[in-house]
Amino acid sequence: MFEEQFRSVKRKHPLIHSITNLVTINDVANMIIACGASPIMAIAPEEVQEITAIADGLNINIGTLQEKTVEAMLLSGFTANMKGIPVILDPVGVGASSFRKRTVHRLFQEIRFSAIKGNAAEIRCLLEESGEMKGVDGAEEGTMESFVSIAISLSKKTGSVVIMSGETDIVTDGSRTCMITNGHPMMKDVSGTGCMLSGMITSFCAADSHHLFEAACAAVMTMGIAGEKASEAMLPSMGNATYRTRIIDAVYTMKETDFKESVRYEMQ
Amino acid sequence: MFEEQFRSVKRKHPLIHSITNLVTINDVANMIIACGASPIMAIAPEEVQEITAIADGLNINIGTLQEKTVEAMLLSGFTANMKGIPVILDPVGVGASSFRKRTVHRLFQEIRFSAIKGNAAEIRCLLEESGEMKGVDGAEEGTMESFVSIAISLSKKTGSVVIMSGETDIVTDGSRTCMITNGHPMMKDVSGTGCMLSGMITSFCAADSHHLFEAACAAVMTMGIAGEKASEAMLPSMGNATYRTRIIDAVYTMKETDFKESVRYEMQ
Amino acid sequence: MFEEQFRSVKRKHPLIHSITNLVTINDVANMIIACGASPIMAIAPEEVQEITAIADGLNINIGTLQEKTVEAMLLSGFTANMKGIPVILDPVGVGASSFRKRTVHRLFQEIRFSAIKGNAAEIRCLLEESGEMKGVDGAEEGTMESFVSIAISLSKKTGSVVIMSGETDIVTDGSRTCMITNGHPMMKDVSGTGCMLSGMITSFCAADSHHLFEAACAAVMTMGIAGEKASEAMLPSMGNATYRTRIIDAVYTMKETDFKESVRYEMQ
Repeated sequence: MFEEQFRSVKRKHPLIHSITNLVTINDVANMIIACGASPIMAIAPEEVQEITAIADGLNINIGTLQEKTVEAMLLSGFTANMKGIPVILDPVGVGASSFRKRTVHRLFQEIRFSAIKGNAAEIRCLLEESGEMKGVDGAEEGTMESFVSIAISLSKKTGSVVIMSGETDIVTDGSRTCMITNGHPMMKDVSGTGCMLSGMITSFCAADSHHLFEAACAAVMTMGIAGEKASEAMLPSMGNATYRTRIIDAVYTMKETDFKESVRYEMQ
Repeated sequence: MFEEQFRSVKRKHPLIHSITNLVTINDVANMIIACGASPIMAIAPEEVQEITAIADGLNINIGTLQEKTVEAMLLSGFTANMKGIPVILDPVGVGASSFRKRTVHRLFQEIRFSAIKGNAAEIRCLLEESGEMKGVDGAEEGTMESFVSIAISLSKKTGSVVIMSGETDIVTDGSRTCMITNGHPMMKDVSGTGCMLSGMITSFCAADSHHLFEAACAAVMTMGIAGEKASEAMLPSMGNATYRTRIIDAVYTMKETDFKESVRYEMQ
Repeated sequence: MFEEQFRSVKRKHPLIHSITNLVTINDVANMIIACGASPIMAIAPEEVQEITAIADGLNINIGTLQEKTVEAMLLSGFTANMKGIPVILDPVGVGASSFRKRTVHRLFQEIRFSAIKGNAAEIRCLLEESGEMKGVDGAEEGTMESFVSIAISLSKKTGSVVIMSGETDIVTDGSRTCMITNGHPMMKDVSGTGCMLSGMITSFCAADSHHLFEAACAAVMTMGIAGEKASEAMLPSMGNATYRTRIIDAVYTMKETDFKESVRYEMQ
């Protein structure tokens, strides 16, 4: 059922406004193009509302947060909610500073998010507003059941689709849960695969805003399959930089048949 | 006649100060190197005048505009004009917000631009100070004649060489017009090909500031030829990320003979 | 003796906080991953102290300096010094503006640096607080002896390990000096090889903070060897963009045996 969402992005070519972090901003732009959407970046409070007003989806990423950007996020989020377009949150490294926690707290007070994507530590932190993590990719110990339960809890608490990335990716809307096992271990060796995924989730949700759960699942599957395809025929001299290029390429060249044949998931 | 300009950048190795957008800043730097020039980036109002003072050309791009950067642009533009070095404007997505329109209006009041590069929508917006576009790559309907006429009008109004990018690129200084048909459709699937082109136009103009029209033409031709070369022998697994790398590579490795053999244009 | 440091990064996987320039921030992140460490970027004064507090090393690069970032650098540097983790300075283009000179002056007053990496012009500028350079890659004339003497003087003056990059890289702690001849001329055609090296020096120093001199040497050697490996089997169509990708790849895939076999240096 997810190939419909995969197809939809390429057909509708939604315009995605990203207020994203400065480390991976270029990869996010090229990934949004790769999956069939169109990127626009704007960060100044003076203009973000107008930019969001012409967009089909809003992608908020707190990776290199600055005071001004928080203001921009609030203004854009407000506009997106008024307009009824999907808003996605990537709470990068939220546990790492009180500034990030405070910011996310404020974003939650003023913006309704269609979807939230983070790793186990980030999702747990959002739920508990406490938590410890090592850097932005901080792994967390826990059983699969505990992860699913945390994701479902956050989804119920916020009304958002929650995507918890990990070896198995979990997507839930509180009632339905999808466990996706596509992906490749080397993806964690590329800076920004998480940010690229958020850009892609926003693109898919914008293209099919009436099926946010399915759209988020399809985006996560696409990213995972791309990670697998990109790892094929890697020569011994190729490392994380070539792999990065290949992941974006794999999304760009992915056909609906590739998607259908390669997808691996289980519904709960 | 344009191979002279192509050669000139590599011989003179001009230093280019870019105040550019944060999405594509790295690609702009590497493209400036690829064509034979040397990049320097500085954005703080506290220092941009000193940086422009040691540069041979100034590249202004409004892609991810911020309040502080506008100030920096005005200071650098003033210094560049006083010093008599070329200043190039890339009015990215100018139609998308009043902040961008206001900023460009102010830039025009205080800076004399050697060249302005935009797509049809952006150039039209500059001319009309009104206009609608979808995102930064917004296509516009119109006949070739109307495009040429708009470009010439803006050139006459501003005294700048105007470069209107599109399937056919138009370069005009108001009296002479050059239609360049090099290029490849996949270039629009790479974020920042326009920004890279602006960096290259600045490099070419800085290397031959007495022939701005010819320099701008040669830069546009170089970019178009690079897009063509980069598309050769693309494997089915290669997408927009590999293509991006190859475009920069193609500029880096381009010989004067390649340039002469591949260039396709018509003078009017 | 340097293979121990090479090994150490991969084993200890230190977390590196970079306050770096916006042109090359993505390459720095991927290079830090490539050598075995883990990157975290944060630039807001509101949070940098907390980020540094969880990090194992701090990388400060003044490439696209802004007022706010200077504040962040001072706060992070203070925290790093209190905590006793290595702090590395990359004084990119320090000679190019008085803002950069002033900033470096202030950084030196308030932060104790474990290591300082620059080209001849930058190191000389730090020493003399005067100097002329063309752009950030400004070459300087001078004999090898004069370079070594300048590096040693700065090291004695500051108590930092000094890395002077050039055709022959010089690393000194004031008493020992290592001349490293690994590297490739094409490295200067990639924007940000210097910034990537600084990220890598920070990673190596963080992994072995009791042997800063050896760690800095090993990082410089790794970068040089990567430049050599990356140049092998380059096709005529490949340019500086492919070469950039390959340098990061070469660090990612480098084995300890490659390192030992390829390293070329002389101790003084």
